[in-house]
Amino acid sequence: MIRALRSTVVETVCIVTLLASSCAYAQLYTFSKQELIDYTSKSPFERFPDGRPKVPDSMIERARDLSSEEVWAGLHEDGFKNQYADGFHVLYPGKTMVGRAFTVQFMPRRGDVDEISKNKARDRGLAELTNQTAIDMLQPGDVLVVDLFGKKVDGTIVGDNLFYYMMKATHSGGLVVDGSIRDLDGISKIDMPAYFRSADPTPIGNVMLTGINIPIRIGGVTVMPGDLVVGDREGVYFIPPQFVQEILDRADEIHIHDEWTKMKFDEGKYKSSDIYSSPKDPKLQKEYEEYLKRRLDEIRREQNSK
Amino acid sequence: MIRALRSTVVETVCIVTLLASSCAYAQLYTFSKQELIDYTSKSPFERFPDGRPKVPDSMIERARDLSSEEVWAGLHEDGFKNQYADGFHVLYPGKTMVGRAFTVQFMPRRGDVDEISKNKARDRGLAELTNQTAIDMLQPGDVLVVDLFGKKVDGTIVGDNLFYYMMKATHSGGLVVDGSIRDLDGISKIDMPAYFRSADPTPIGNVMLTGINIPIRIGGVTVMPGDLVVGDREGVYFIPPQFVQEILDRADEIHIHDEWTKMKFDEGKYKSSDIYSSPKDPKLQKEYEEYLKRRLDEIRREQNSK
Amino acid sequence: MIRALRSTVVETVCIVTLLASSCAYAQLYTFSKQELIDYTSKSPFERFPDGRPKVPDSMIERARDLSSEEVWAGLHEDGFKNQYADGFHVLYPGKTMVGRAFTVQFMPRRGDVDEISKNKARDRGLAELTNQTAIDMLQPGDVLVVDLFGKKVDGTIVGDNLFYYMMKATHSGGLVVDGSIRDLDGISKIDMPAYFRSADPTPIGNVMLTGINIPIRIGGVTVMPGDLVVGDREGVYFIPPQFVQEILDRADEIHIHDEWTKMKFDEGKYKSSDIYSSPKDPKLQKEYEEYLKRRLDEIRREQNSK
Amino acid sequence: MIRALRSTVVETVCIVTLLASSCAYAQLYTFSKQELIDYTSKSPFERFPDGRPKVPDSMIERARDLSSEEVWAGLHEDGFKNQYADGFHVLYPGKTMVGRAFTVQFMPRRGDVDEISKNKARDRGLAELTNQTAIDMLQPGDVLVVDLFGKKVDGTIVGDNLFYYMMKATHSGGLVVDGSIRDLDGISKIDMPAYFRSADPTPIGNVMLTGINIPIRIGGVTVMPGDLVVGDREGVYFIPPQFVQEILDRADEIHIHDEWTKMKFDEGKYKSSDIYSSPKDPKLQKEYEEYLKRRLDEIRREQNSK
Amino acid sequence: MIRALRSTVVETVCIVTLLASSCAYAQLYTFSKQELIDYTSKSPFERFPDGRPKVPDSMIERARDLSSEEVWAGLHEDGFKNQYADGFHVLYPGKTMVGRAFTVQFMPRRGDVDEISKNKARDRGLAELTNQTAIDMLQPGDVLVVDLFGKKVDGTIVGDNLFYYMMKATHSGGLVVDGSIRDLDGISKIDMPAYFRSADPTPIGNVMLTGINIPIRIGGVTVMPGDLVVGDREGVYFIPPQFVQEILDRADEIHIHDEWTKMKFDEGKYKSSDIYSSPKDPKLQKEYEEYLKRRLDEIRREQNSK
Amino acid sequence: MIRALRSTVVETVCIVTLLASSCAYAQLYTFSKQELIDYTSKSPFERFPDGRPKVPDSMIERARDLSSEEVWAGLHEDGFKNQYADGFHVLYPGKTMVGRAFTVQFMPRRGDVDEISKNKARDRGLAELTNQTAIDMLQPGDVLVVDLFGKKVDGTIVGDNLFYYMMKATHSGGLVVDGSIRDLDGISKIDMPAYFRSADPTPIGNVMLTGINIPIRIGGVTVMPGDLVVGDREGVYFIPPQFVQEILDRADEIHIHDEWTKMKFDEGKYKSSDIYSSPKDPKLQKEYEEYLKRRLDEIRREQNSK
Repeated sequence: MIRALRSTVVETVCIVTLLASSCAYAQLYTFSKQELIDYTSKSPFERFPDGRPKVPDSMIERARDLSSEEVWAGLHEDGFKNQYADGFHVLYPGKTMVGRAFTVQFMPRRGDVDEISKNKARDRGLAELTNQTAIDMLQPGDVLVVDLFGKKVDGTIVGDNLFYYMMKATHSGGLVVDGSIRDLDGISKIDMPAYFRSADPTPIGNVMLTGINIPIRIGGVTVMPGDLVVGDREGVYFIPPQFVQEILDRADEIHIHDEWTKMKFDEGKYKSSDIYSSPKDPKLQKEYEEYLKRRLDEIRREQNSK
Repeated sequence: MIRALRSTVVETVCIVTLLASSCAYAQLYTFSKQELIDYTSKSPFERFPDGRPKVPDSMIERARDLSSEEVWAGLHEDGFKNQYADGFHVLYPGKTMVGRAFTVQFMPRRGDVDEISKNKARDRGLAELTNQTAIDMLQPGDVLVVDLFGKKVDGTIVGDNLFYYMMKATHSGGLVVDGSIRDLDGISKIDMPAYFRSADPTPIGNVMLTGINIPIRIGGVTVMPGDLVVGDREGVYFIPPQFVQEILDRADEIHIHDEWTKMKFDEGKYKSSDIYSSPKDPKLQKEYEEYLKRRLDEIRREQNSK
Repeated sequence: MIRALRSTVVETVCIVTLLASSCAYAQLYTFSKQELIDYTSKSPFERFPDGRPKVPDSMIERARDLSSEEVWAGLHEDGFKNQYADGFHVLYPGKTMVGRAFTVQFMPRRGDVDEISKNKARDRGLAELTNQTAIDMLQPGDVLVVDLFGKKVDGTIVGDNLFYYMMKATHSGGLVVDGSIRDLDGISKIDMPAYFRSADPTPIGNVMLTGINIPIRIGGVTVMPGDLVVGDREGVYFIPPQFVQEILDRADEIHIHDEWTKMKFDEGKYKSSDIYSSPKDPKLQKEYEEYLKRRLDEIRREQNSK
Repeated sequence: MIRALRSTVVETVCIVTLLASSCAYAQLYTFSKQELIDYTSKSPFERFPDGRPKVPDSMIERARDLSSEEVWAGLHEDGFKNQYADGFHVLYPGKTMVGRAFTVQFMPRRGDVDEISKNKARDRGLAELTNQTAIDMLQPGDVLVVDLFGKKVDGTIVGDNLFYYMMKATHSGGLVVDGSIRDLDGISKIDMPAYFRSADPTPIGNVMLTGINIPIRIGGVTVMPGDLVVGDREGVYFIPPQFVQEILDRADEIHIHDEWTKMKFDEGKYKSSDIYSSPKDPKLQKEYEEYLKRRLDEIRREQNSK
Repeated sequence: MIRALRSTVVETVCIVTLLASSCAYAQLYTFSKQELIDYTSKSPFERFPDGRPKVPDSMIERARDLSSEEVWAGLHEDGFKNQYADGFHVLYPGKTMVGRAFTVQFMPRRGDVDEISKNKARDRGLAELTNQTAIDMLQPGDVLVVDLFGKKVDGTIVGDNLFYYMMKATHSGGLVVDGSIRDLDGISKIDMPAYFRSADPTPIGNVMLTGINIPIRIGGVTVMPGDLVVGDREGVYFIPPQFVQEILDRADEIHIHDEWTKMKFDEGKYKSSDIYSSPKDPKLQKEYEEYLKRRLDEIRREQNSK
Repeated sequence: MIRALRSTVVETVCIVTLLASSCAYAQLYTFSKQELIDYTSKSPFERFPDGRPKVPDSMIERARDLSSEEVWAGLHEDGFKNQYADGFHVLYPGKTMVGRAFTVQFMPRRGDVDEISKNKARDRGLAELTNQTAIDMLQPGDVLVVDLFGKKVDGTIVGDNLFYYMMKATHSGGLVVDGSIRDLDGISKIDMPAYFRSADPTPIGNVMLTGINIPIRIGGVTVMPGDLVVGDREGVYFIPPQFVQEILDRADEIHIHDEWTKMKFDEGKYKSSDIYSSPKDPKLQKEYEEYLKRRLDEIRREQNSK
């Protein structure tokens, strides 16, 4: 529906060209293209013009079979134990969300900071920074990740019109908001995954947009622009790009392992501990290893043929 | 199922004729027909014999397309910011509830007040006031709105039998209870919207019915008998009758606006801010205004033809 | 401090004479003097001009030694299990609050009801009903009991100035509010017990005063005007007047019992179960009974001599 | 998926033969076969080799039509008011769970107790007690009931592989865990009821298995091995075996009563209180009694013919 | 005050001789003297006749200077990270509680188990097991640690009479209850530390005593009989006896370190990082080491002279 | 006590000279001296070398008499409604905290960002950024304001040693942490105000320091470096410097008003509404105005004489 109020905004930018890489946003928290590149330098992938790592589309497709547990298995090394957030309402519990993090941060409105930001913008001939400024920058494959510090009333990042636009612009990428949404009835008819804390009839207000594609916090996670976002019905993982390949490969093995385990259980001859988590009997162990190798070959061949 | 316990009740009434308007309830909180008429005097509509405003059936039908956000847009003026309650379990998230508020209030049981009430009733030859007294007064198009102060155990306003009766009597009007229900499995098979705080196997007890069709509080809302109750998957709005026409008309425009906005997004040529919340380009603005006029005419014609 | 906002109010009254008994308040919920007398007819005590039962001052004094557990022991019969509320912040944990309930009810503001109330009042030449209307009616020995439905922001019944006035007017009676207070720093220096849900810097607002000295709900309790309010560091009991004498008498016995029990424990010769809850050894039992009789006589004599 | 961590365990057992009755588990809390038989001696049914009462399969089938309210009606006598637990996530809200309780208890890991337990086990030539030890003992018709003291992180009793095994081993009996599960996406595709507090990507850890088929606590309920577990969309009842027959018989009457009540409501001639909870008109009362008798006969005949 | 209700109990015992070691309690969970000795075999100290480890009185005295942080520093090795519980109301925030754990476990009452237990007891000519049975077994230096599964209403382990008795019997040892207490006003005048979840006017009821001096769970901790219980204003540590000596010695060093650190800060010449957590300047480092040695010698001498 | 773990840190800086203004911190969020000056340009006061506004010491002294309500009255204009945070544990409820905000932000640790930060620092020859880096920069009159996103375990900004240092360095300025502290027993003996979410025995860990003297969020407030922080027993206000003078002047009037109001109440002749919030009787009004003028003169004279 028509948003009756305007979100409070901070500062205008250069002319918002798509992915304009040379444009320093005049937002409260600055994080330059070079800083973004530096802090994500472990990513092995190419980048967007603005410096964001670009996990390849093929990996995004493969990641649609991932579950939280499979990411956990591949990401539980020291230093990366804080990449999971849950406690969200999940719009489509049966559908995995996968995409590249596009981050936005809001803070509580404060008149002086807000006014100074707007003056700065006006002096440079720029327009206000609003939630739509960010939304208009979204690319296919993006998941919009928004820190609205859990705000419910006046903390609604989008209603159904902008959610519809996002669906078109991101090719059904997705939304994670530590805050709320509005028009839940309308949004429930639009085919894009969403993770949100609550729904409310009020439009966004009494906040300032303080950063686009800067590091943000969602629950207990530090999210970086370009992280691979994977959401299932439990919660959301934010995967640093450098781990994506390994997690996907490991997940293939887990899939095969689970396939074989259930096949053996179907035979009805074994206790669970005979088979799981690994077969005790050396003959079974060998059978499993051959199965794993054969299926892995099949899967790799299929992946390569795409 | 059979209610094994009786709800505690307060006081008998005159012979409970349907909508008996001259009958002063001997309940703890009295609110006469004249008081009801006075306090709802802004309603432009006809009234039930008991004084309750009667929003017309045609408007109830039109209201089935409303969402919380559309009510918000039409009701956010000063003095009416407290008309929304949420935090309920919603029985049918995809189905809008619309109807006229029939209010009931309970309070914690207290032996002396309860006994005196019953004596008063007996002296006048009346029967006890129970939840069924109220339920038996429901009319087609009513939504039963019950203040049970959030009670879970012993705070169940109905089970499946009475819920079934209510569905028949109100023509699937609805139920809002700041308390609980029982027989959720049975209720889940009955086609009437319901908003409740929890479900519990216990029957209602340890409470007194203290008022029927008096002003009550649900969450942060003062609900008046005859309010138009609109529930979607987010929560429930209680709309004073005098706002209904305007909200409905405004909602028609919002529907058209959203229709047009999404059509333009489908074209894939625009940024969201080119179109939403209103088109920037004067040509687009004109296109929109013509579209709005044409569609509004169609809708009005259709509404009038009914 | 100066209250910067006015609480929203409902309706003016007759000239507010002290305890004016013939004056029907034009408040949303009416509860006439006769209704008040009827519903508290079990009270054996005299009444205020407005009909409120008046538990005698001498009993209020005796009640200062009561604890929640002693009230529990005297009030746990069927029909009176809902007379206790807790979960409050307690201003003076070591000081028992005792007094007669003076009740006030607020509801969420609603523009139409509010406006009609004010018009009704104006038509009769009356002033608005505010929190100060109620506070100005307080008598020595009263405890102000306020239903503000748990409101924190804009739900502050008093700040330090009105709290100071209340202390003077009630002779340090007390305050129970299911809502908040402001000026906690100032209030902490004023010698009157208070039980409140929270403290907040905002003044009261966005509410309507809907009843003075009507039945109200505090937590899970139905409070009647004139109830004896007893608060200790655990919570608050609302005692119907007809139980006061019995509870006080029983409490005397409990005090003696506890005195004797601890004396015996001090001897260091007994297991707890030899003595408590009643002595097992017939000789000890006899010793206890004689002690009880002697001490009870002393206490009764002392009480009568006052 | 593959469980990457091992649950911490306590103590090995004899050779885990299926239902081995003579084998005293060397777990922290011992509860011998004789103790189990003694404490469930009111059960009228036969027993498993390990002493657990075995509610007959035919009753399990009949119990699939039970709701929480019907159990409530048959179990609300003094001493059995604590047999209901709720607040769970319900995997299949529309599907009743019925089965015999197989209980397991965990406690927070403590290095010294854990080590001593393992040494005890090793000295006797036994293997560790893990969640799989318990799962491998499950029988057709069992519901696994697990006290994991509400643990979320590291408190996941099973993932999809073991849940699949349980489904096979219990013939879709069910799971109740006061703790969490993992692989919710995978589990959602497996046809077995489950009640759990939360879902989490971590495997079980930092706990010790302290008892199998001992009395355990789930919420406010003391659960005994062999209890009939009945879960609907509200919560879970744990029914002592001695009450099963009576509850089932009573439920048949309730079903008929509700059937008849709704039929009468369908006629549209009655107020709810004319019919419910029992018909007021002697003629209707008689009609109902005849209906009840006839339908009961039909049902009994049908039950006997099975 | 007089406890008006009796706690529900389970089973009688032998004649309750003080610390009677040969007496197998007929409680629901059995844990024999030998089991207790086995599972606490790492304790280097002597034992009570019932097998409980007896941390020496001298160490209890030294432990009165411990804080949670000092225990943390000495107990944070793998396998002992779950020994801390908080979230309690603390009766005396400024006073450290130290003593030997005497554990008691309750479970929700269940009529059949309760009845069978009582019959078992009667058959052996024993009395009921109540909270007083346990309290009468307390020794000087004991802290009563009670699992009442967080129960508030009817979950009050003691009132002021029994608390007074406990103070006498344990020489002001202490109380930790995952449940509630009553008579808080009375208890507040008695000189013994207490940690409790809530206070309530009801007496204990609707529960069964299921174990005395068995392993129990308090929050996330597995507590063993004989653990050294240390409570400060943050929470409670349960220290396995084998760690006590080391923690005390380490705490002496921490005390000296903190003493020296603050002395240096008092000089006003240093940044915090020059001094803390260890001095950077080698000269300062040497100064510190000499100070540590000298003070440690003093302390050790003082300890030995006692 | 000795901190056993090191807080995770981000990046080294230039040589940390006191208030070094030319030194760009290599922290994750950069906020240059010029940005700080720009965004606080409304401050009428002089500045620290690093650009932070410096509310004069004399105003800090005057502010010690402020309460939350007095700040509310002076700060409630549009755009500044979000400057209050509560829900803290308050170390010294009777003592007002006043000082200049020195802000620090932490985020959840993430191995790649942390490593890159450290490498950046090392390349420039700098040391790690830890909580001590920030603490060592504190000036007399500062209040350390820390965003630790509500973390309890591993979220303790200081223990008693660093708290002691802070007390010395800030001259008892104060601490506000949206996180926890440790050594609460030790801290309770040190004379400096503190507002914290919880206390825990663990040291800080699993976090990265991401900004010093940048804009941060505490609850619903955007805090700027140099804000005047005022804490009373309710909560904490963060006052932009440009409002300080006006709030202080207004507070003087409020103090006089309250003084006079209570004096009149002491006379016992008036209802509260005769006097409060302003006197109705013109004569009283005049009396008040004269009183106000006289006392204000006295106060101003006194202030000037300092």
